[in-house]
Amino acid sequence: MKRRDFFKNTSILAAGTALAPLTGFAADHEIPVISGKTAKNIIFLVSDGMSIGTLTMANLFIQRRDGRSSHWLSLYEQQKAVRSLMDTASANALVTDSAAASSAWGGGVRVNNGSINVGADGTLHKPILQKFKAAGKSVGCVTTVPITHATPAGFCVNSGGRDDQEGIALQYLDLRFDVMMGGGTEFFSADKRQDKKDLFESFKAGGFSVLRNRQEMLSKSAADSKPVLGVFHEDGLPYTLDRNNDSAKAAAVPTLAEMTDTAIKLMEKNKKGFVLQVEGGRVDWGAHANDTGGLIYDQVAFDEAVGVAIAFAEKNKDTLIILTTDHGNANPGLFSAGGDVNANFDKIKSFKHTNDWILNGITSNHTPKQVIERIEAAQGLVFKQEEAASLLTHYQTMDGTGLYNPKKLPFKLLAEMQVKHTSVSWGSMGHSGDYVELAMYGPGSEMLKPMVKNTDLHQLMLRAAGLGA
Amino acid sequence: MKRRDFFKNTSILAAGTALAPLTGFAADHEIPVISGKTAKNIIFLVSDGMSIGTLTMANLFIQRRDGRSSHWLSLYEQQKAVRSLMDTASANALVTDSAAASSAWGGGVRVNNGSINVGADGTLHKPILQKFKAAGKSVGCVTTVPITHATPAGFCVNSGGRDDQEGIALQYLDLRFDVMMGGGTEFFSADKRQDKKDLFESFKAGGFSVLRNRQEMLSKSAADSKPVLGVFHEDGLPYTLDRNNDSAKAAAVPTLAEMTDTAIKLMEKNKKGFVLQVEGGRVDWGAHANDTGGLIYDQVAFDEAVGVAIAFAEKNKDTLIILTTDHGNANPGLFSAGGDVNANFDKIKSFKHTNDWILNGITSNHTPKQVIERIEAAQGLVFKQEEAASLLTHYQTMDGTGLYNPKKLPFKLLAEMQVKHTSVSWGSMGHSGDYVELAMYGPGSEMLKPMVKNTDLHQLMLRAAGLGA
Repeated sequence: MKRRDFFKNTSILAAGTALAPLTGFAADHEIPVISGKTAKNIIFLVSDGMSIGTLTMANLFIQRRDGRSSHWLSLYEQQKAVRSLMDTASANALVTDSAAASSAWGGGVRVNNGSINVGADGTLHKPILQKFKAAGKSVGCVTTVPITHATPAGFCVNSGGRDDQEGIALQYLDLRFDVMMGGGTEFFSADKRQDKKDLFESFKAGGFSVLRNRQEMLSKSAADSKPVLGVFHEDGLPYTLDRNNDSAKAAAVPTLAEMTDTAIKLMEKNKKGFVLQVEGGRVDWGAHANDTGGLIYDQVAFDEAVGVAIAFAEKNKDTLIILTTDHGNANPGLFSAGGDVNANFDKIKSFKHTNDWILNGITSNHTPKQVIERIEAAQGLVFKQEEAASLLTHYQTMDGTGLYNPKKLPFKLLAEMQVKHTSVSWGSMGHSGDYVELAMYGPGSEMLKPMVKNTDLHQLMLRAAGLGA
Repeated sequence: MKRRDFFKNTSILAAGTALAPLTGFAADHEIPVISGKTAKNIIFLVSDGMSIGTLTMANLFIQRRDGRSSHWLSLYEQQKAVRSLMDTASANALVTDSAAASSAWGGGVRVNNGSINVGADGTLHKPILQKFKAAGKSVGCVTTVPITHATPAGFCVNSGGRDDQEGIALQYLDLRFDVMMGGGTEFFSADKRQDKKDLFESFKAGGFSVLRNRQEMLSKSAADSKPVLGVFHEDGLPYTLDRNNDSAKAAAVPTLAEMTDTAIKLMEKNKKGFVLQVEGGRVDWGAHANDTGGLIYDQVAFDEAVGVAIAFAEKNKDTLIILTTDHGNANPGLFSAGGDVNANFDKIKSFKHTNDWILNGITSNHTPKQVIERIEAAQGLVFKQEEAASLLTHYQTMDGTGLYNPKKLPFKLLAEMQVKHTSVSWGSMGHSGDYVELAMYGPGSEMLKPMVKNTDLHQLMLRAAGLGA
């Protein structure tokens, strides 16, 4: 079978209904194992929207706070990883969105921005977790944003539009994947869904364990073989920095590392292995908002999940670890622009809350003095009267539109005012076309070339698992 | 001999005079060859201040203009290179300057920003080209900025301050390196030097071939064994984009690729080999100025020099090619922010001149209409009346200070106004602490680890050449 044919194994017409989940492709079981060194398990960890400055700053942060390197870069220092530079473009743009990027990995073909494994001509590309599930493996996704968001969805479903998260939630019900956990309550609850269906009840009726908080997740027995849906928060989970400084949130919401650990424990009993996607989704949101505390602490939390995955792979050598991002975002960096860059950067260690927390707690009734106190309490940074007043002017003009910033809070202005305090600056509030970091550890990593397209990972994962063309 | 002792092979006290060139260290000849696979030649190519977005955009530009990949990334595609991620910090800052960065490679030890191979305690670290020269190799540097600038200087001399370019020029006279070419007329000419010495005459009297324009350089016979000083322009050479659209400049000033080719031809006859540093120095200046045309065309010109080096190494397998940068700068990227990012990016193909050319040609007597015409003639971008007027206000307030922008031209404002036209945006106007791209091709590259500190390259080069500790 030609590689091209293998990818394009169906079309909208052939599938009958356009966006129904597609399962049971006959070809999947017939593909022979490529080599004796096969990846029984694959853990694909994606820090969404991670520019190289994000990876760098998280490592510097960990080094200066904890006296060690990040788990990700420790792999490099220990010469255990194979690295590559990845071209992330989508079918229609040099700068991808997360839907097209995850589809490139998940379906093996570049699609237009906004689409999930559906080509411009309507061709459906079968999502990789459906292929692995059909081959007998356990499969799942954990994320810090809605579990129906673009990055997990790109491994799971076909959808003409990433915004149809209610439809994606319905597809998950039919797919019966083993572990799906993250945020996104509103796409499952009867009072928020347009169709008023109570999907939580539907999942329970369908034989799922439905987990709604951290304690339920931690109490889940690995011996219980029911598929798991875990939805722990509306929208995305809280930023790590805000969660860790709020005992109620910390009690209710698991960390990405905890979700990763749970997912592995639930799936590792499958003798045919498992494939897990782990997404640090709020790294991308932190970049969109130019939110230094949001970005760095969530990248550090992502790295804790990387540590969980590597620890498992160290003990289970038949596990392939993939570390990457889907695209750059905002190209933040620690910049030299006068002042003591080291001392400025170290201030971030004392942060208690994100810019998101600061700005969402301000109203048009606040005084500049109250704004100054709020920022100092959250981050220890002392703002000037005129800066606080300038921030407050934005609260008179909010109109409630915008994808990542519906209230149009003054994230950009606050970030610009913080540069002299932290030396962290930003290039944009959107995705970048930068080639990105990609690394692998374990069986299959020997196939990784120094430069790849995002689509190459689809076939590489299949081949690593002995399912390649 | 311990590695530490090998690096610190002298001190300011032992050397007698602090900043004199240091030659003839006895230990150099006694170090045995490490392996049979020795790099007779090393070509070290540094694109100064190249963030990953710069490497990416230059590759996208070449792909979309010429239908091929850059020479640098073609090496990856052909699986010929070994890659690494490099930590670029200096002794006193997470964000280095070019002096400390080049010293890390050149002297093997991190020094404070601004210093060239002189530690904070006065310790002198012997520059690597002095070591290679002492071992019988031909050595040299070519650059698009003054040949006395920090990056070439870091391979050649010890200096307490990078700003002492007149003193560095004097050191070059004593060092008698084989090929030193770039800009910086003012550091050699009697009418510009503080000491009124005519160094061009001194170099001639000292037995150098002194080359002052492109034709003299191209006419230089490879059979002539005199050392070469080539100084082709005041300050830096013109930006590639401006040079290529100005026939007088194109006739007078060689490209970096031509200088690289010439340097190789002059040095390859040495049976003991050669070591050449090639710097794309104006990439850094383009980043400091947020000058998209300056940055991308000079990165493309750097890549042409990479192509010359690789072509030589393909024929001379005993040649190690090193491709890297000293630090990120400004973290530019192609960003998605509404509009057609592909079409916007393609506009850069039609650029005729840089922002530097645009802004230096405007005076306070210009009208907004004239500014609009100048920008459209230079780059095909149509500005609004109020944008031109806003640019012009800056010409009323220029005070003549600033390292990279002495006239305080409105580079930042112009770049911000261009974002909607080109989709290229910038994070800062200074260096970043991002970990950076590093790749090697040829003998010695097998020693490269996935993650290195900049200082590691010093010993790696020596070991690759059979001179390591």
